[in-house]
Amino acid sequence: MAEVYVVMGSDSDLRVMSSCLKALEKFQITYEVFISSAHRLPGETAMLAREAAGKGTKVIIAGAGAAAHLAGVIAAWTTLPVIAVPLGGSALGGLDALYATVQMPRGIPVATVAIDGAYNAGILAAQILALGDVELAGRLARYKEELALQVKEKNQRLQELGYRGYLEQ
Amino acid sequence: MAEVYVVMGSDSDLRVMSSCLKALEKFQITYEVFISSAHRLPGETAMLAREAAGKGTKVIIAGAGAAAHLAGVIAAWTTLPVIAVPLGGSALGGLDALYATVQMPRGIPVATVAIDGAYNAGILAAQILALGDVELAGRLARYKEELALQVKEKNQRLQELGYRGYLEQ
Amino acid sequence: MAEVYVVMGSDSDLRVMSSCLKALEKFQITYEVFISSAHRLPGETAMLAREAAGKGTKVIIAGAGAAAHLAGVIAAWTTLPVIAVPLGGSALGGLDALYATVQMPRGIPVATVAIDGAYNAGILAAQILALGDVELAGRLARYKEELALQVKEKNQRLQELGYRGYLEQ
Amino acid sequence: MAEVYVVMGSDSDLRVMSSCLKALEKFQITYEVFISSAHRLPGETAMLAREAAGKGTKVIIAGAGAAAHLAGVIAAWTTLPVIAVPLGGSALGGLDALYATVQMPRGIPVATVAIDGAYNAGILAAQILALGDVELAGRLARYKEELALQVKEKNQRLQELGYRGYLEQ
Amino acid sequence: MAEVYVVMGSDSDLRVMSSCLKALEKFQITYEVFISSAHRLPGETAMLAREAAGKGTKVIIAGAGAAAHLAGVIAAWTTLPVIAVPLGGSALGGLDALYATVQMPRGIPVATVAIDGAYNAGILAAQILALGDVELAGRLARYKEELALQVKEKNQRLQELGYRGYLEQ
Amino acid sequence: MAEVYVVMGSDSDLRVMSSCLKALEKFQITYEVFISSAHRLPGETAMLAREAAGKGTKVIIAGAGAAAHLAGVIAAWTTLPVIAVPLGGSALGGLDALYATVQMPRGIPVATVAIDGAYNAGILAAQILALGDVELAGRLARYKEELALQVKEKNQRLQELGYRGYLEQ
Amino acid sequence: MAEVYVVMGSDSDLRVMSSCLKALEKFQITYEVFISSAHRLPGETAMLAREAAGKGTKVIIAGAGAAAHLAGVIAAWTTLPVIAVPLGGSALGGLDALYATVQMPRGIPVATVAIDGAYNAGILAAQILALGDVELAGRLARYKEELALQVKEKNQRLQELGYRGYLEQ
Amino acid sequence: MAEVYVVMGSDSDLRVMSSCLKALEKFQITYEVFISSAHRLPGETAMLAREAAGKGTKVIIAGAGAAAHLAGVIAAWTTLPVIAVPLGGSALGGLDALYATVQMPRGIPVATVAIDGAYNAGILAAQILALGDVELAGRLARYKEELALQVKEKNQRLQELGYRGYLEQ
Repeated sequence: MAEVYVVMGSDSDLRVMSSCLKALEKFQITYEVFISSAHRLPGETAMLAREAAGKGTKVIIAGAGAAAHLAGVIAAWTTLPVIAVPLGGSALGGLDALYATVQMPRGIPVATVAIDGAYNAGILAAQILALGDVELAGRLARYKEELALQVKEKNQRLQELGYRGYLEQ
Repeated sequence: MAEVYVVMGSDSDLRVMSSCLKALEKFQITYEVFISSAHRLPGETAMLAREAAGKGTKVIIAGAGAAAHLAGVIAAWTTLPVIAVPLGGSALGGLDALYATVQMPRGIPVATVAIDGAYNAGILAAQILALGDVELAGRLARYKEELALQVKEKNQRLQELGYRGYLEQ
Repeated sequence: MAEVYVVMGSDSDLRVMSSCLKALEKFQITYEVFISSAHRLPGETAMLAREAAGKGTKVIIAGAGAAAHLAGVIAAWTTLPVIAVPLGGSALGGLDALYATVQMPRGIPVATVAIDGAYNAGILAAQILALGDVELAGRLARYKEELALQVKEKNQRLQELGYRGYLEQ
Repeated sequence: MAEVYVVMGSDSDLRVMSSCLKALEKFQITYEVFISSAHRLPGETAMLAREAAGKGTKVIIAGAGAAAHLAGVIAAWTTLPVIAVPLGGSALGGLDALYATVQMPRGIPVATVAIDGAYNAGILAAQILALGDVELAGRLARYKEELALQVKEKNQRLQELGYRGYLEQ
Repeated sequence: MAEVYVVMGSDSDLRVMSSCLKALEKFQITYEVFISSAHRLPGETAMLAREAAGKGTKVIIAGAGAAAHLAGVIAAWTTLPVIAVPLGGSALGGLDALYATVQMPRGIPVATVAIDGAYNAGILAAQILALGDVELAGRLARYKEELALQVKEKNQRLQELGYRGYLEQ
Repeated sequence: MAEVYVVMGSDSDLRVMSSCLKALEKFQITYEVFISSAHRLPGETAMLAREAAGKGTKVIIAGAGAAAHLAGVIAAWTTLPVIAVPLGGSALGGLDALYATVQMPRGIPVATVAIDGAYNAGILAAQILALGDVELAGRLARYKEELALQVKEKNQRLQELGYRGYLEQ
Repeated sequence: MAEVYVVMGSDSDLRVMSSCLKALEKFQITYEVFISSAHRLPGETAMLAREAAGKGTKVIIAGAGAAAHLAGVIAAWTTLPVIAVPLGGSALGGLDALYATVQMPRGIPVATVAIDGAYNAGILAAQILALGDVELAGRLARYKEELALQVKEKNQRLQELGYRGYLEQ
Repeated sequence: MAEVYVVMGSDSDLRVMSSCLKALEKFQITYEVFISSAHRLPGETAMLAREAAGKGTKVIIAGAGAAAHLAGVIAAWTTLPVIAVPLGGSALGGLDALYATVQMPRGIPVATVAIDGAYNAGILAAQILALGDVELAGRLARYKEELALQVKEKNQRLQELGYRGYLEQ
């Protein structure tokens, strides 16, 4: 049983989407990862979306580029929350994927994150799952502190080295 | 039996899409018109697309706005030519629908016409059908002459009335 | 105790955001609604975000326009899932709000829905809450059937009336 | 006799447009390929378009960039279906070519595919020709299965190797 | 004999283009005005462009919207300077017409003015013609003084009335 | 002697720019207002900019639309801080004015505020002047409290009336 | 005496603008080339523009990027035709320069060519000068034939070599 | 005591922002530089902004990319003038950062400079500080002369070398 499904439209999306998988691993969230395609494998994609809830999956993350229909097509077949990562790399730099993903019609929302924002899709899934998982909530709280600490440390180093020193290190 | 299917995502699209139906009627092309939805009625939309060829349909026209997945989803289920009309009216003025429609991935083309260009979708369907229908080809040829004649007549009237007269008529 | 907080940057946003509240009411989700502002009331906004989880709130929805920082600022102070509605109406038609909302940096995601997509923000919140609420999940499933049924009925009426009759009704 | 004409505005377009030719070859469609130009060779371009139907050609594919008038100018001279490939590479990344191609006026449609989507232009031509060619229709059906199979195989390999293994292969 | 040809793609463009004609009249420049169309009347448009120089015409102004090919098509057939007015009013607000007009390929320039900038097209024609017409050059110099005077007078009135008074007048 | 110059390119800009004047009045800042034009009155505009510092002026605010050169041209002639208001209303909705204003080259900055953000230009001028004026700094601090209070009061009313009551008031 | 002035805002523009100079040389048009700047050298730029006509110059070409005010500022000071080349290379890829150049206000036109279209600016200048220079008109006519011939030759070679051969040559 | 605070959202912004620091150094303006983050370190960022005025700081410069909230969040907590540098490098090339920065709501202005225009942010700060510092005003005046001189020298060299020589040097 996987808490999260991560679906992408092509294996060329895997490099960007792997940072989503790393985020899920960091938070110890179980996942399954699929290459499927709204256009080349529509039946299997629909099936995957329809059966996800029954298998205990709670969140579906979909990454696709260009006329990025994958997240919307999945959302059509499930009432689970669907998180979408619009992928760049097309002639339109991901703007096509962003518009095709975020502008969903009334009744069928898709939770969209930044262009190529695969890592954040993993964090968002963690935030959703943490509503029913106190330990995960704790991990997220510590992650937030960790993020803050990293910025503080960088700032501290900047104060010590000066900007010229910092750039040369 | 209908030569053309015209599918739209919502009845709010009917006013714009009706000009497509008028184009088909003008060229005496048989059609069926459907309200379906890639997101709200995905199974029926897939079925409609899959069965179209078997019923003798030759071209499918799809009109949708915003994250306009309808044409792409239909194209996923058929090898018939699919013509798409990206519809305006959203906050992004149809640019979202245009990108979501035209930027289809390799292997699954959608023939896209102008934003709200429903009439031209009908003409394009006629051009495709005319490859196997000499009479229809004749009607298209006469239509082209008619278009030319209309411009000539308007120009003639402009020469007679002058631009001030023309604007006041 | 409210399951959802709905925050907006100005009372001029209330008309669009009220459709979010109607969605929450439809699904019998408890909510509190606030006018706050990332720029005019930053301390209170931060406080509201920080204390939300402790008060039992599970999801925060934020609607804002133009340089729409509200959702991002709230996400900075909580690990609850934050859903954002970029609002149109500015000179840039909501594109500014969309970019300012969806392009969040690594570590601090915001779940963005369509420009002026307040209703879908409510549905998305319901989908998230339904992961821990079987009855709500049932309501969502019935809503999905209802959406499908509405399209079918409209299509049925279109078949009966023809497009001319449908447009005149 | 060639079923398809493939016209491009410059020999610098040949590299992208060659994937269109490969698609036509894959489907055993006869074609002729031309470098012509709406602006530098307008008479010959018009002639080519006017005489295409008489020579038995059924579909014309035009690829051009920037102020991409080629497809529109060809469509002005024929009632054959004209498929256009807006080409990227300009300062505006193909957005100029897309708008200049897809936004055709009432009466003169151009079937537009994705920016640099030359391969899909070939598939679309095949779909149109298959309406009158049962064998070609069979080839298209098999191609669709092949596309599905490729995705399935990639997914299968991903399941076997895991994403880290897949990325390293 | 007309010094300037003013061509537009449709009679719906006449209202905007009439301000171009008024500019020409103001500067006592002879002109002829035509409705022609790059797509609906391509042969006549080509003829008109080819014969213009021989009839003594010196500048051609073309106004068109959407996939605005008119100016480019005319420029293909003449070495006279061609001035283009990209027209708004489409779903893309004239951006399509602007890109389709200004991004002409090497060797075939079109002198583009602002979206709906028909008046300025007339002024630009006058500036070109004034290179060989001392009296016209004088008229242009006086026009420039007139423009300056108008701003000065408005500023003077603003100083006298204050901004509240100015807005109420 | 005026602390601030407010310059606009046309009297049609006065309605939007008057909110800048109201902001200055609210903060008891002395100003002079001019209609000038970078293109129609370039010499006077240059003079106005060159002499401003010598007359004791400290900040120049410039509002212009379309190819909005006014602020840049003024900045070329002075080392005073220049604040620019890009004005909407053109076919490109102010995007042209925004780009033409904010993208100034190295060495000649212009402080740009939002499209049609004339009121904020006044506030920004006040913030700059307050660096040397303790009383003005106090007024700004009170204004910030006032802004906060307004939001709080609206929120209070929303809590009392509910959103339906608030919308109906 | 130079027939054409070519002005650019920075020496970093020289590489792109040099193709304009080559076009002028090809047509045996005399020119002077200047680095000036609307923002860093406003007085000299104004002087240059004001004195151009008196020195016998007939056309001014201006190339600038980003907030490209150069052409507009020159047009403010002369009634000679001003041709502008919006230059790319900024973060906005030349879109800023295009808008800042083409969207000139009523009364002060600038003849805009494509982004980085420096060569075409030279051709356009030649077309303007040819109105008063029969030999230059002849050279332009021959250039047009040469352009046509080049396309024909490339097409001929493509027919001989096939597309694979052509790409490999 | 530092006259200027320079804040950036990440150490990856330091390379671009360092040119701001160099501008401040050139004008002998004291500054402190911080890495902080509106989203990862919101409390410290607010504190830094709130306490700046009390510590004698007069201007705050903020550089951030993507959903660039940093300047707006700082402006929420201070009445000091806040100058923002929208940073490029995201999938949207800095357009997201520009919109998220410049489109601030009424009452909370941010003085925005060009995308990646960090140097100009420093100059603008100098212009603001020079209102209360005669020596700094003198330095700015000399800088303006220096800018002019550089352009003149480059132009002089171009006249001497010709454009071919200039490009080869």
